[in-house]
Amino acid sequence: MARTIVASATKEIIIGFDQPFCVIGERINPTGRKKLAAEMVEGNFETVKADALAQVAAGATMLDVNAGVTAVDPNATEPALMVQTLEIVQSLVDVPLSIDSSVTAAIKAGLEVAKGRPLINSVTGEEEKLEAILPLAKKYDVPVVAISNDETGISEDPDVRFAVAKKIVERAADYGIKPEDIVVDPLVMPIGAMGTAGQQVFRLVRRLREELGVNTTCGLSNISFGLPHRHAINAAFIPMVIASGMTSAIMNPCRPQEMEMVHGANVLNSTDPNCQFWIRIYREKPALSAIDPSAAGGETSAQAASGGRRRGGRRARA
Amino acid sequence: MARTIVASATKEIIIGFDQPFCVIGERINPTGRKKLAAEMVEGNFETVKADALAQVAAGATMLDVNAGVTAVDPNATEPALMVQTLEIVQSLVDVPLSIDSSVTAAIKAGLEVAKGRPLINSVTGEEEKLEAILPLAKKYDVPVVAISNDETGISEDPDVRFAVAKKIVERAADYGIKPEDIVVDPLVMPIGAMGTAGQQVFRLVRRLREELGVNTTCGLSNISFGLPHRHAINAAFIPMVIASGMTSAIMNPCRPQEMEMVHGANVLNSTDPNCQFWIRIYREKPALSAIDPSAAGGETSAQAASGGRRRGGRRARA
Repeated sequence: MARTIVASATKEIIIGFDQPFCVIGERINPTGRKKLAAEMVEGNFETVKADALAQVAAGATMLDVNAGVTAVDPNATEPALMVQTLEIVQSLVDVPLSIDSSVTAAIKAGLEVAKGRPLINSVTGEEEKLEAILPLAKKYDVPVVAISNDETGISEDPDVRFAVAKKIVERAADYGIKPEDIVVDPLVMPIGAMGTAGQQVFRLVRRLREELGVNTTCGLSNISFGLPHRHAINAAFIPMVIASGMTSAIMNPCRPQEMEMVHGANVLNSTDPNCQFWIRIYREKPALSAIDPSAAGGETSAQAASGGRRRGGRRARA
Repeated sequence: MARTIVASATKEIIIGFDQPFCVIGERINPTGRKKLAAEMVEGNFETVKADALAQVAAGATMLDVNAGVTAVDPNATEPALMVQTLEIVQSLVDVPLSIDSSVTAAIKAGLEVAKGRPLINSVTGEEEKLEAILPLAKKYDVPVVAISNDETGISEDPDVRFAVAKKIVERAADYGIKPEDIVVDPLVMPIGAMGTAGQQVFRLVRRLREELGVNTTCGLSNISFGLPHRHAINAAFIPMVIASGMTSAIMNPCRPQEMEMVHGANVLNSTDPNCQFWIRIYREKPALSAIDPSAAGGETSAQAASGGRRRGGRRARA
């Protein structure tokens, strides 16, 4: 059973099939956030700090840290900015971090300063990437996200994406990196553009778990791209990927609806023993049934006593 | 592939693996609703009518109709009340109905008046039940819900519950009833009382689908019995059972959070082609991102153009 260990200076987290779903906070990422990028270029880390604190307060298990402020000459700017950002974040919060960059030098620089056991995000099946990133994962003894695309791009065929993931796991083994230190991202397509995107992911995650024994992750909100009311699609997607065996996701923990589904799926997936976390977090929430008279669902305490089954009383009358 | 056909006088619905999840509205059920029971005994069907209309308006695919107003002498009262209730409901709404009773005479009376192809709810693995209900299902050529308990009660061992379901399917075959006309209820236990209740159901549904080829259903809200904020547990449970292959549930369609998860899971399970239903229902809902600045998730339209992947821009920079 894959157990991927990540850690900050003071906190160790296990990503695994028998663990609560690992929520990797996605917010500290200037790609696609122009205002944040501009701030970071100017040396203003107020938004970074606020995002770090807010995501941990919202229940993030880990934080992803990306310093990709520009596509112009990232090799020149990104390593130093990654170091600065990581140092600020790890001085503020105690969760493990994910070093997220497409620039090898930024990952290397990040690995020098990140405390504990960070996650590298990411390697792909591209030869150049494998040769750049896998030695770093080995040298620093850290786990790495493996994105299942290669030189030919992202295949729409899930069997090809599985094969790419398998290749990365095998190449990692050549470097002495165990499968438990590979967290595969099977790549989530927007369901609005590809109607089978959900089923592809569910099947891939199951295969990755059963055949390769690896943990998995994804950029969760991709699934709903372009659809109206998209956060409810994300919310429905979370229990489905968890039921399929996915063990982490890069997502926005500051959205209560999505986090509620993470916590609910943990209860239902037996990774919140005795519902302790659920009860602690949601005990004080007003029951919707107190507001909506149609909410009670027909159960009575008498039926509860018979085992909570709606039809508990029936057999006695049959 | 199991295709269970149910119908009203004017509307046919298929319950099946490739169909939208079948929501069987649970509200018309006086067991556990003392006020409703008292009304029905007095011949007052105003709540029944309101519940019928509200559930269909909320998106119920079918309606369950139960007339179990008393446990004292149900054989005397229930058949006539079932007939009356069914006639009122089918005069108001056009969805297929489920005839829900533990009283064989009430089911028989209901079958005489229900138009189209109603669903019998239910038979169990008890010998007496099998011999009473299966001939009715055969005679009226209607499908039946098979609850996986028998004379020994409800087993906590899912393998035993599977064996009971298998026995019912086999016994039905002896009567000439095909597996596609058996909708198995694997029985959902409260997760607060049995921590593996969710995983049991997921595994059972998968086995029932793969090994017996049958459709499945459940009394959905049982899962959350006794827990705080229980409707969010129900909401998380829905996508998980759908991902496991469940094709229907007896539930309260008047709860938007749960129905949102049904509709979202249909999109993700490829049973809402081109997201047509989703877009029609949720297009007008205000995007939460318009309210919550943390909701945008970091994507830009440029990333959308690259395929909607959060990391779409990366490889170009690598």
